Amino acid sequence: MLIHIDFNSEEAIYQQLCNQIILGIATCQFEDGQVLPSVRQLADDIGINMHTVNKAYTVLKQEGFVKVDRRRGAVISVDYDKQRAEKAIGKDLRVILAEAICRNLTREDIHSLVDRIYDEYERYINS
Amino acid sequence: MLIHIDFNSEEAIYQQLCNQIILGIATCQFEDGQVLPSVRQLADDIGINMHTVNKAYTVLKQEGFVKVDRRRGAVISVDYDKQRAEKAIGKDLRVILAEAICRNLTREDIHSLVDRIYDEYERYINS
Repeated sequence: MLIHIDFNSEEAIYQQLCNQIILGIATCQFEDGQVLPSVRQLADDIGINMHTVNKAYTVLKQEGFVKVDRRRGAVISVDYDKQRAEKAIGKDLRVILAEAICRNLTREDIHSLVDRIYDEYERYINS
Repeated sequence: MLIHIDFNSEEAIYQQLCNQIILGIATCQFEDGQVLPSVRQLADDIGINMHTVNKAYTVLKQEGFVKVDRRRGAVISVDYDKQRAEKAIGKDLRVILAEAICRNLTREDIHSLVDRIYDEYERYINS
């Protein structure tokens, strides 16, 4: 999978890396059980610090996307517990919907945005 | 408005501060044109570094929630342009929905989460 980091972004590099790996899982480029590159290799490939990759893997582990196996390293392992998923996603959605309300977007605007984005992902997965 | 910072959180303090101010606008605790505390005062009140408050105000300015007035300091000034709003919110939603897809949440799950959160905010605003 191609990892694209924007070095001019306001977003921390470890966060961008987490998001790209999550996107890779969502679009079936990474599968459950798949071994991620070693910290050193990924750091070399992208041209970033090993600590940054390590931080991304740690966050992905805390958030339930990755397990760390002593022998194999970081392995994709998604936590499918629905209650935990809704809790985690609800927390992030709360922030975004506050932003939407500030900017006068209605709940209908958000529902159609959600549909548009789900459609995009589904087209991508099925292509 | 009460600003609550979680010093044990993984989330950067400036980001928490931004989110709290956005939440304050969404729930009508901050109004357009209202002057925010000075950087020094807010830093003192919360017990954080002035640079952190400054970074939060800069990000809020870039994201179109705040303007900086030479005499009055940081003033709430929301950018209501709908196209820009949908673009910004769509970008964040894309990340969250990738997470939702990874965890097998359906688009119906997300629509009902969105409704639940909008309901919460509306109850809060109307109370």
